[in-house]
Amino acid sequence: MATKQLADWVSALEYSSLAQPVVDAAVRSFQNSLGSILGGSNHQTTQRTIKALQPLFDSRQCTVIGHATLTGSAVFCDLQNAALINGIASHVHDYDDTHLHTVIHPAGAVVVSLLAVAEHLKLADGRVVTGKDFLTALVAGIEVGLRIGNAVSPKHYDEGWHITGTVSPMAVAAALSNLLHLTPEQTANAIGISSTQPVGVRVHFGTDTKALHVGLAAQNGIQSVMLARGGFTAASDALEGRRGWVEVLGNGSNMLDEQINQLKKLAEQDKADSQTEERGLWEIEKNTFKPFPCGIVIHPTIDACIQMHNEQKLKDPNNLNKISSVRLRVHSLVLDLTGKKTPKDGLEAKFSVYHGAAIGLVLGSATPAEYEDHIVNSSDVLQIREKVVAEVEDNMRSDEAVVVLTMQDGAKIEKHVEHAVGSLDRPMTNEELREKFQSQAEPVLGKERAEEVEAMAWKICDVPDVARVAKAAR
Amino acid sequence: MATKQLADWVSALEYSSLAQPVVDAAVRSFQNSLGSILGGSNHQTTQRTIKALQPLFDSRQCTVIGHATLTGSAVFCDLQNAALINGIASHVHDYDDTHLHTVIHPAGAVVVSLLAVAEHLKLADGRVVTGKDFLTALVAGIEVGLRIGNAVSPKHYDEGWHITGTVSPMAVAAALSNLLHLTPEQTANAIGISSTQPVGVRVHFGTDTKALHVGLAAQNGIQSVMLARGGFTAASDALEGRRGWVEVLGNGSNMLDEQINQLKKLAEQDKADSQTEERGLWEIEKNTFKPFPCGIVIHPTIDACIQMHNEQKLKDPNNLNKISSVRLRVHSLVLDLTGKKTPKDGLEAKFSVYHGAAIGLVLGSATPAEYEDHIVNSSDVLQIREKVVAEVEDNMRSDEAVVVLTMQDGAKIEKHVEHAVGSLDRPMTNEELREKFQSQAEPVLGKERAEEVEAMAWKICDVPDVARVAKAAR
Repeated sequence: MATKQLADWVSALEYSSLAQPVVDAAVRSFQNSLGSILGGSNHQTTQRTIKALQPLFDSRQCTVIGHATLTGSAVFCDLQNAALINGIASHVHDYDDTHLHTVIHPAGAVVVSLLAVAEHLKLADGRVVTGKDFLTALVAGIEVGLRIGNAVSPKHYDEGWHITGTVSPMAVAAALSNLLHLTPEQTANAIGISSTQPVGVRVHFGTDTKALHVGLAAQNGIQSVMLARGGFTAASDALEGRRGWVEVLGNGSNMLDEQINQLKKLAEQDKADSQTEERGLWEIEKNTFKPFPCGIVIHPTIDACIQMHNEQKLKDPNNLNKISSVRLRVHSLVLDLTGKKTPKDGLEAKFSVYHGAAIGLVLGSATPAEYEDHIVNSSDVLQIREKVVAEVEDNMRSDEAVVVLTMQDGAKIEKHVEHAVGSLDRPMTNEELREKFQSQAEPVLGKERAEEVEAMAWKICDVPDVARVAKAAR
Repeated sequence: MATKQLADWVSALEYSSLAQPVVDAAVRSFQNSLGSILGGSNHQTTQRTIKALQPLFDSRQCTVIGHATLTGSAVFCDLQNAALINGIASHVHDYDDTHLHTVIHPAGAVVVSLLAVAEHLKLADGRVVTGKDFLTALVAGIEVGLRIGNAVSPKHYDEGWHITGTVSPMAVAAALSNLLHLTPEQTANAIGISSTQPVGVRVHFGTDTKALHVGLAAQNGIQSVMLARGGFTAASDALEGRRGWVEVLGNGSNMLDEQINQLKKLAEQDKADSQTEERGLWEIEKNTFKPFPCGIVIHPTIDACIQMHNEQKLKDPNNLNKISSVRLRVHSLVLDLTGKKTPKDGLEAKFSVYHGAAIGLVLGSATPAEYEDHIVNSSDVLQIREKVVAEVEDNMRSDEAVVVLTMQDGAKIEKHVEHAVGSLDRPMTNEELREKFQSQAEPVLGKERAEEVEAMAWKICDVPDVARVAKAAR
């Protein structure tokens, strides 16, 4: 019954069911995702994709976000390829969002699919998608994806699946089914068709293919919904059935029913708007946003180093040169996942806690600019990086780190970050999200247009026609 | 090294490396597959797909095989959707081919991809694909797919994966990499990108989505090759690496190296053309062709019943009515997989050994026509079907069955099929393949055109321009 229950829930979800905190969380997820798409739009991986697949672009209905041809006109392509490319862009800097319990990056695939379909519908059917419809569909997709993810975590990811790619086709299917008002039966078929197209094993981390997983999830989800809308059938017990998604990819873990019960309870709670008991959180409210474009386990270290850069005035080379060693005390996974001592380029630097510490101390900043190849190999950064040693400390939480500088005069300066910026206990503020957005959007769109697009993102609930957002991001 | 070794092998494979038995096997696989595509082209599932995805069809470069619009003009669409739809058609009747050790249906996804790319290349680049290039690429794709399949069989299928869909994206990637002369490095990337898009869990058997797996495999493989050709990267150890395809989807079974060694040895053996020792078989030489459009475990029963229909002149109702009971003695899997006593329609009848026995005895034939809904529910067939009882016999091989008719006068007539038609020990003859092809192609293309297309299939090595085959199948 799990597949059917999820489909029923998706079909029934309306904007009026969403409590204000859910709306606010969805707006933040959208604003952050749109910035990430813009930030990744000029990445080499995204460029390669556009060039490679151009022979397949035919219709010119949908926007390739942030792109222009050499003559200055915008780049368009068909629905599926637009979602594919924008999906790659959303994830390519590892600068998007993270649902910490599952390590899913939930918004990207859903956002790019909804934007592309909004443009497609307008041109193909003359139908306009409002901001409220868009946001409701976004919530439907993200909740479904995260609930399915919860049901198989952490085993599924541990066994080698890139969970963002395996779960997102279903999230996209749920979002579009809601947007396009598919019947509950069609919605179940859409979820079923998408579930049989899981994308991604983790061996590809560190290559172009990692970000491709997000683009493919969008593409697969869109196609699934179109098939289901046309009467195409899938197993009605696609998720929970014998040899279904949970059994085969979740390796028998079956906590899906419990997750669905919680999902239904939360929607009812928010409808009743009960003030007496403590409000339970929707999964989208637990989404976090990456302050730094690298593996999340490095974030507490970078946070500490940036604070020290500011407090110790390390911008001044005289101060910086007094550092004789940098000692990191970090969570047990840090060296496993991000222990690259001598990263050769920006892509490898994302897996180096040493580079993260160095740019924090030397540059006081960790945006995509500090992960460009020439920064990774600059003498300033290398000089400090070579002085960094890292030790795992058993009781350290994953959002916690201690950084100790030893100065040439023997003085020790310590910084203890208990909860890194961007963690659940210290979420990014809206102001920090604004800075993050502009740092990515401005180089692509220019200041004025970047601010215009961002304003639309924050006010998405009042936007009468979502296709305009994509249009503005050309 | 497995991924790299496979890629090197694919890049190096030339028509001149193929011994005559390999060429013959490839031609038979192609002829059978083309017939299956034509046979499935008008199936409801295929029709649904075309209707559902029509909004995505833009370019008109590739043929949707066997289709015409209401006005009589052919149906075309873009490269990926053509391969998707023709791939669905190839498998939708369960009437294609089977590599018995892995239960992979190897030809469909590779054939439809090569045909679509041949048409696309001609229109987009003016490049012509010859029959010999086509056949070499077909062998490259099928060998790679089956070798990877061997490495994870039977565990991978047993655990719920539809192995045809999980392996075929890599087979398609190998075939197209060979056809398009990708470098070994690009070929490894293409195999890697395709490997992270496995399609299909078995819960969907019995729905439209089962055949979709073949179409998606083609689509994914094509896209992977285009990306790799454009410089897109994947893990160089995509198959054998930590958290790579074999570990995650093969659950740690790692017989891949051995499979690759055999692959290389066979190519060398055939090059040397050594006459002194017994020749080893390529995997494509072990491909078998389905004489009947249903689960392969039913085939010995149907074979026996058709023989009895002819020998006992059961076409005459007077003889047929003398049967008082039909007893089947069958292999242990038959009732597990195909034990449906009272199938309601053609789709369910594919999983009914009772229907199989009944159409064999009553109609003397088991083609897609005998799996139409009205035949499944016809009184003639029902009358005999109700008299069938089946028993599992422990020592029975999977290609063996015994059928015993008890007549009203008490006489018993027994037929023992030791190796069913279509099995490795009793392969379909070319003449039987011809009949099978025409039974599928004639209703779609008419007799004359069907014969023309079939002649091209048998003579594919001499066809100067493969796009013409697709064109003739419009």
